[in-house]
Amino acid sequence: MHFADRLFRAVDQKETPLCVGFDPHLALIPAHLLDSIDHHLDPLERYARAVETFCMQILDAVADLVPAVKPQFAFFERLGSPGMRVLARLCAEAVSRDLIVIGDAKRGDIGSTAEAYSEAYLAPPRAGFPEPDIRVDAITLNPYMGFEAIQPFLCPYRKTGVFVLVKTSNPSGCQIQDIPTHEGTVADSVADLVVNWGSGREGDCGYSDVGAVVGAPYPEAAIGLRRRMPKTIFLIPGYGFQGGGSRDAMITLDQRGHGGIVNSSRAILFAFQKGIHAHFGPERYAEAARAATIDAITDLRNGFRALHP
Amino acid sequence: MHFADRLFRAVDQKETPLCVGFDPHLALIPAHLLDSIDHHLDPLERYARAVETFCMQILDAVADLVPAVKPQFAFFERLGSPGMRVLARLCAEAVSRDLIVIGDAKRGDIGSTAEAYSEAYLAPPRAGFPEPDIRVDAITLNPYMGFEAIQPFLCPYRKTGVFVLVKTSNPSGCQIQDIPTHEGTVADSVADLVVNWGSGREGDCGYSDVGAVVGAPYPEAAIGLRRRMPKTIFLIPGYGFQGGGSRDAMITLDQRGHGGIVNSSRAILFAFQKGIHAHFGPERYAEAARAATIDAITDLRNGFRALHP
Repeated sequence: MHFADRLFRAVDQKETPLCVGFDPHLALIPAHLLDSIDHHLDPLERYARAVETFCMQILDAVADLVPAVKPQFAFFERLGSPGMRVLARLCAEAVSRDLIVIGDAKRGDIGSTAEAYSEAYLAPPRAGFPEPDIRVDAITLNPYMGFEAIQPFLCPYRKTGVFVLVKTSNPSGCQIQDIPTHEGTVADSVADLVVNWGSGREGDCGYSDVGAVVGAPYPEAAIGLRRRMPKTIFLIPGYGFQGGGSRDAMITLDQRGHGGIVNSSRAILFAFQKGIHAHFGPERYAEAARAATIDAITDLRNGFRALHP
Repeated sequence: MHFADRLFRAVDQKETPLCVGFDPHLALIPAHLLDSIDHHLDPLERYARAVETFCMQILDAVADLVPAVKPQFAFFERLGSPGMRVLARLCAEAVSRDLIVIGDAKRGDIGSTAEAYSEAYLAPPRAGFPEPDIRVDAITLNPYMGFEAIQPFLCPYRKTGVFVLVKTSNPSGCQIQDIPTHEGTVADSVADLVVNWGSGREGDCGYSDVGAVVGAPYPEAAIGLRRRMPKTIFLIPGYGFQGGGSRDAMITLDQRGHGGIVNSSRAILFAFQKGIHAHFGPERYAEAARAATIDAITDLRNGFRALHP
């Protein structure tokens, strides 16, 4: 089954396109988790175990609510070898709960290097080689090196998905993405490439397995990019913490609520720290995360209804 | 001391700009290394130990010849948590031999995510947080998200280097890098940004700590980019295996032999497999790598002499 079909089947089941981003900032992990771990352990191992407990508890708290999770690799890599072990476990536990796992790795390399990345995270290993320990359903990729940086991640046997950076939600993204070209901007040209790369890779839902990262804070740009990429799944960051509203986040979705997945990371993971769920406090961080997830789902539904009354 | 000064001091000491790339393709690791490891171990751990021995032996064989090494992260990530442990050891052993370590990670993310990547590999950790296990002197980065994806890797205290992808050596790189803009191409615009980002970060050698990846198979493009980036260190891939000649590889270096670092990976690591050093055979892979390194140094010297007679 195509990645796109699996994703939107999950979206239909959970009745929301919300994806919970796992960005476990070390500085924000509740202190009691760290204190509860043997102080004689190697410090990286100690932090990794605290992050592991944190992620597993939050996964338990949100797994029945959302169709997908998106671990941000950087925070696991920060903890070196023990961190990668935790990332592997998080991905495996998410899969065992029928969640779609989107690896936010933003890799971008070519040839045998891209193949190594693909085998590390998505593709089945070549016969005779060891099974990798981290498995995701889709991965975020950087298009700067062209299709050679994308193609190895599209596996014909195990249908995987990719999300190619097109228009990102950060201010300095404009330095390259908004450079004027004969076709519009660099982001427009990348959008056309994404359509081209996805052509022939559409699932029954009509969307292709080659998705695009399109930041939520720029609704006008997002609408323009939707016109260029009518059959592309948008991974929409910047909802919640980065300031995008629910209407903006939902604006590129179709009438069935398909076509995009909306990510929220920090506003859910660290809901215990500030805002309306801070009353839970650090000890009850997982309950705070669940409450924030329910709020985000409601907010996105309201945004969708405002667009499709 | 600036990264640029440390790099060219090492280049002067070894009298070559050659960098050995550590790209340990699993399929190319000598079989006897794998056979010698306990077959009851976890398969990833077994492969990781074979890769560890392979990398350590080659490091021993080339450390006195070259100024720098460039581990390609993908091949270590392919082995998950055990692979990251091997990467950490390779980097540490290289540093202990006074080699400059360039992490070929091609990361590109922003904000706290970029900070997590930076702390994972380059920057000193924030006070109270655990020391990461992988340490490099410089890292390759992708510019698609703008300066926010670069800035966190430039540490004011521990002077680190970055190499920003500008013009890559792969065929499909043109799909984005060669898009025409008002300034020339996207690669030209990125080159101008790299100059801007490096401004004020020059060492005594005149070059800045913000380098650029400029592929060797395109000498005309490289000369044009050198004009745009006169004070930028070029990391030059594509020499050796990817078909670039020594003259092309050296064409952007200045008369002192500064301004660039030329990478060769597979032609050195797997010299035992084919070509004029295949007679060493898989058992003597490290000797083959040393012989291939000496050849590459001579070849680059000849290329340099042809340019500066």
